[in-house]
Amino acid sequence: MTDTIERATTAGAGSSASSEQLVDSAALAEVLFARWADARKHSRELLKREEFHQIPGLGMAEHRARVLGQLRRLVEEGAVHRAFPKGLGGEEDPGGNIAGFEELVIGDPSMQIKTGVQWGLFGAAVLHLGTQRAHEQFLPSIMSLAIPGVFAMTETGHGSDVAGIGTTATFDPGSDEFVIDTPFRAAWKDYLGNAADDGQAAVVFAQLIVDGVNHGVHAFYVPIRDGKHFLPGVGGEDDGLKGGLNGIDNGRLHFTGVRIPRTNLLNRYGDVDENGVYSSPIASPGRRFFTMVGTLVQGRVSLDGASTVASKLALTIAIRYASERRQFAAAGGGGDEVVLLDYQRHQRRLLPRLATTYAMSFAHEQLLEKFHAVFSGEHDSDEDRQDLETLAASLKPFSTWSALETIQEAREACGGAGFLTENRFTQLHADLDIYTTFEGDNNILLQLVAKRLLTDYGRRLVKPDAAAIAAYASQQAGQAVSRSGLRALGQRIADFGSTARSVGNVRGADAQRQLLTDRVETMIAAIAGNLKNAGSLPASDAAALFNANQNELIEAAYAHAELLEWEAFSDRLATIEHPGNKQVLTWLRDLFGFTLIEKHLAWYLINGRLSATRASAITDYIDDRLLPRLRPHALALTDAFQFAPEHLRAPIATGAERERQDEARAYYAAQRANGTAAVEEKALAKGVAPASS
Amino acid sequence: MTDTIERATTAGAGSSASSEQLVDSAALAEVLFARWADARKHSRELLKREEFHQIPGLGMAEHRARVLGQLRRLVEEGAVHRAFPKGLGGEEDPGGNIAGFEELVIGDPSMQIKTGVQWGLFGAAVLHLGTQRAHEQFLPSIMSLAIPGVFAMTETGHGSDVAGIGTTATFDPGSDEFVIDTPFRAAWKDYLGNAADDGQAAVVFAQLIVDGVNHGVHAFYVPIRDGKHFLPGVGGEDDGLKGGLNGIDNGRLHFTGVRIPRTNLLNRYGDVDENGVYSSPIASPGRRFFTMVGTLVQGRVSLDGASTVASKLALTIAIRYASERRQFAAAGGGGDEVVLLDYQRHQRRLLPRLATTYAMSFAHEQLLEKFHAVFSGEHDSDEDRQDLETLAASLKPFSTWSALETIQEAREACGGAGFLTENRFTQLHADLDIYTTFEGDNNILLQLVAKRLLTDYGRRLVKPDAAAIAAYASQQAGQAVSRSGLRALGQRIADFGSTARSVGNVRGADAQRQLLTDRVETMIAAIAGNLKNAGSLPASDAAALFNANQNELIEAAYAHAELLEWEAFSDRLATIEHPGNKQVLTWLRDLFGFTLIEKHLAWYLINGRLSATRASAITDYIDDRLLPRLRPHALALTDAFQFAPEHLRAPIATGAERERQDEARAYYAAQRANGTAAVEEKALAKGVAPASS
Repeated sequence: MTDTIERATTAGAGSSASSEQLVDSAALAEVLFARWADARKHSRELLKREEFHQIPGLGMAEHRARVLGQLRRLVEEGAVHRAFPKGLGGEEDPGGNIAGFEELVIGDPSMQIKTGVQWGLFGAAVLHLGTQRAHEQFLPSIMSLAIPGVFAMTETGHGSDVAGIGTTATFDPGSDEFVIDTPFRAAWKDYLGNAADDGQAAVVFAQLIVDGVNHGVHAFYVPIRDGKHFLPGVGGEDDGLKGGLNGIDNGRLHFTGVRIPRTNLLNRYGDVDENGVYSSPIASPGRRFFTMVGTLVQGRVSLDGASTVASKLALTIAIRYASERRQFAAAGGGGDEVVLLDYQRHQRRLLPRLATTYAMSFAHEQLLEKFHAVFSGEHDSDEDRQDLETLAASLKPFSTWSALETIQEAREACGGAGFLTENRFTQLHADLDIYTTFEGDNNILLQLVAKRLLTDYGRRLVKPDAAAIAAYASQQAGQAVSRSGLRALGQRIADFGSTARSVGNVRGADAQRQLLTDRVETMIAAIAGNLKNAGSLPASDAAALFNANQNELIEAAYAHAELLEWEAFSDRLATIEHPGNKQVLTWLRDLFGFTLIEKHLAWYLINGRLSATRASAITDYIDDRLLPRLRPHALALTDAFQFAPEHLRAPIATGAERERQDEARAYYAAQRANGTAAVEEKALAKGVAPASS
Repeated sequence: MTDTIERATTAGAGSSASSEQLVDSAALAEVLFARWADARKHSRELLKREEFHQIPGLGMAEHRARVLGQLRRLVEEGAVHRAFPKGLGGEEDPGGNIAGFEELVIGDPSMQIKTGVQWGLFGAAVLHLGTQRAHEQFLPSIMSLAIPGVFAMTETGHGSDVAGIGTTATFDPGSDEFVIDTPFRAAWKDYLGNAADDGQAAVVFAQLIVDGVNHGVHAFYVPIRDGKHFLPGVGGEDDGLKGGLNGIDNGRLHFTGVRIPRTNLLNRYGDVDENGVYSSPIASPGRRFFTMVGTLVQGRVSLDGASTVASKLALTIAIRYASERRQFAAAGGGGDEVVLLDYQRHQRRLLPRLATTYAMSFAHEQLLEKFHAVFSGEHDSDEDRQDLETLAASLKPFSTWSALETIQEAREACGGAGFLTENRFTQLHADLDIYTTFEGDNNILLQLVAKRLLTDYGRRLVKPDAAAIAAYASQQAGQAVSRSGLRALGQRIADFGSTARSVGNVRGADAQRQLLTDRVETMIAAIAGNLKNAGSLPASDAAALFNANQNELIEAAYAHAELLEWEAFSDRLATIEHPGNKQVLTWLRDLFGFTLIEKHLAWYLINGRLSATRASAITDYIDDRLLPRLRPHALALTDAFQFAPEHLRAPIATGAERERQDEARAYYAAQRANGTAAVEEKALAKGVAPASS
């Protein structure tokens, strides 16, 4: 039972006791700002201005008008053209563009997303799916916002399944035009930013039909409005009020015999010539489709980044408040009330999420590097693109869900004050809610990742027969799941479960890596084993077999995302030289790794990777070592996020709470000093005389 | 590997294949409506009227005015007086009152909560803390809403720690008055409904001071406004916009030398006579405080019920949509797209939450019975009250958190459509967010429950020494944690881990009960062991020791809440006679129990309660048996919630989606039939002639 006391003492020591300041926040800030620090800081500077701040409770119409005005100001400030061609006034800096853009969430997520609609979707579609002629014809007025535009892909009846959309673009050789049609209600374009009010043109995704042949989904530049009025054949509706992002005018569009010039086809991956002959540089319709859609990955990349920024914001506010707010006197003591962050439960609620947010920040930077390499042309092979897409499809679900959970936990950790709109959490949650759905529903993205992992797994087995799979699964001798974008799963997994009695042997980074890696490998191998006969089954049975493994598939992809986040944290940690920062970030990385392992402890136990003793030691290690060690550095770790007061804008993060608590404590101290304090009835009953006597 | 195929077939069979209709929704509805069906149906009838419906996007001022108007209509309809004395026009039916009240969440959670402020907090405080004189003087105008009132307990500096509030009520013998004062900013009353605009009076909680002695927190009836204007000495602020519930005018109040007659003290549990002498029927100041606060338990009871109603609403909308929405064609088939609810992942997302909501409904009914027994006087001992408080403090955290998670999952499961305010989820989430905080923060409530469990545990050990505890913990020979309100933990726990190979032996209800019960018992015993030396430690060390166990304590209390929910489900199930309903509810109860066990699988493995084989069989049993069995009955199980279209008010739950999907399928079928369908490029490349040829 000495162990118990030792635990308690450790926990006590980590609390309000003043502790050596190990963290150099300024140095750590530069690590977090990373390669595109200039773009981020440029946005942060702009975002100090009130004109870029969200006004909660603004009516929908006013909010929409305000955000449109903000976009015009961003054009003037040169904040949104970094990705476009130099010849048109851009900087051809795709990474810097995303970095600067995702910071906009600090001002108003509606501003961030409407910026994304105009330049990241509408503009990027013209840039990536169009060729020189479209760039010259359309990009200047897109860049200047002279033409606010719509990215018309999603349909009411087809959200994630873009290949199945119903809108058609039929070539009319007589007039050398395409005719755009919406054949039924489910094919209306829906949830489109800029569609309800502002959009003057749209990039419309439609099935391209030439002479009775459907060449699949292509993108077309379609003028839709003249000022406030729809052009002939175009119609639509306002999506109305949404759970958040009400500064964006989402709406629906439909088309009836709308004619556009043949050259309004964005023709990089498929063209129709003046003779009405279709051609494409990509022979396979399937690969062509995925290539086109793949060029639009930047939406996912930037949501990953914006979710990370929003998490940093929420945690900074909650941890500042938790460092000042006192509640309940310590048991047995007549002393001051306890600061919230000294409570173990409060540490459990906030510190693992702080660790996760650091991981997200580092993983996002890797994603941004990969994105930049592809879109700058530095490393732009098919494999690079595929890896980028898989990486984005892995990280986006992780970070968008994590951000929502973090914001919610931060809200609750601040109690009633957290529910006041002025303290930011509720509006951030409302706005970021849909980040889990748009740019690819999280569950669907994870399923895509899982299929990629299965494919990679299958490739490694030259003969994917039952014996090979069984041998693989039993040995867990991992090879690289993928060569570049995906994390190499190298080491042979050690048997952690069999020997050690304490957390000792699993404490190191290698052990964390192996445990996380092994889980991905083993899950994928098991699913591959389950599915191995699918090819020889009738289609409906094969579909049922796949469906019976769907939940496990998605869980495996999520495990892979967790591994990627952990690896990114560890990679970055390895480059840090400041000893204090290195020490504290090592604890933080361990907290991240251990909470992941703790979350999946049942898996490690069932699969014999951890013994029961070792497994329970992991929870103890989090509670008794990592949380107390990190608690004194929590504020400094949020200081490194470098939010100015104009970014936080939360009254509870301004020090007002500390002032109030100090005033109250001073009042009681003065009462005790001058003998005016009322005596407690309880004390009186015990025979203590009133203080005034 | 036959097992795999069998699994797949089972999953397939459970999907869109038409299945025998086992559920009698109408009969099941009566089970759910339960004892106070009349009150619930009365509310449901009223809530069909548009005047009681929330209008999303209404400005704060208009929303506040609308909700105040709704309260006036509820008075006219006789919907809010059931709890009050018959002599004053009430019905003295506390259970029916809560039942009818919590349904109001269907119309607008702001209306529900503002009703709760007026009659459940302000009115109930006068009723329960006041005596005949206060009832006669104040209740009539409270009941009629002539005096909208404020329940002024919480302070900016003291949320959950009510005993520590700073507001004082000092007796002035010269004038026979109390003088109410707010000594510093942190003692301002905060987050008070009706405080910003409507409140004409308040029940103010303050430290009662007579002749230099503080008798602790008491409640006082204090007029605060004359129409729109504060009375002298009273001041306040509007809390402004909140994350939700903006139909309620929350605000702050402070008092400077505000004088009220001595008789405005609500004097049931403490009085000051005309000679300025304090007396109380409860000698212990601590017990007196908890008794007073305990009379206000109905807020927690009703939040538990309202969260359950809101969960039913969200699941009905999401499951209806999931039963109509099609997305992605089945692999390999050229056939129709698949209905969302046929996807395993979608079942995993929604069906366990449906099971949880049924558990919440049955557990809430038990809570309501207990509440009614106490407040009707049928069973009103100290022990009954303590059990009621513990039960409420257990269920409220479970159901408020569960409702938020369910609403969020339902939102995400409906994709972009789920984000449109018209489909209800986002506003329900925004409004119910604070249910986890007010009427007692969930984490604090669970800590109180845990302390009660520890106390009960200690009482059972006459000599709570180390040997006794160790013997107890190792034997897990459970006795009743409590005799009445808490669930008796009776059976000796079988060793599930040692023998069986399949899920067979843990499938029965007894096994589920034992596993869930054992976990609570063992966790409490372990914590008691950790804390056993606390009494002999210096106060600060004892506090640190307690803090080092805080997270585990709260987890243990949550495990206890899970057990209570499961027991309530099983109790109610035992009374059901309709064979189809009994069969389907048995699967649903099993799904609830198995998902609880699955969630805590690591604990069962670490503690040797389940073998690895058995543990992994639990997940398989959920995926391969329970979900496919329940899927065909999901709609019927939500039909039993009996929401009328005017209650749901969600366009995606009206059948519109089915119409759209049918229209689209008919369009393509017609194209294929009349030969106008474009041929796929892919098919063409394989040499298939266009359909038109």
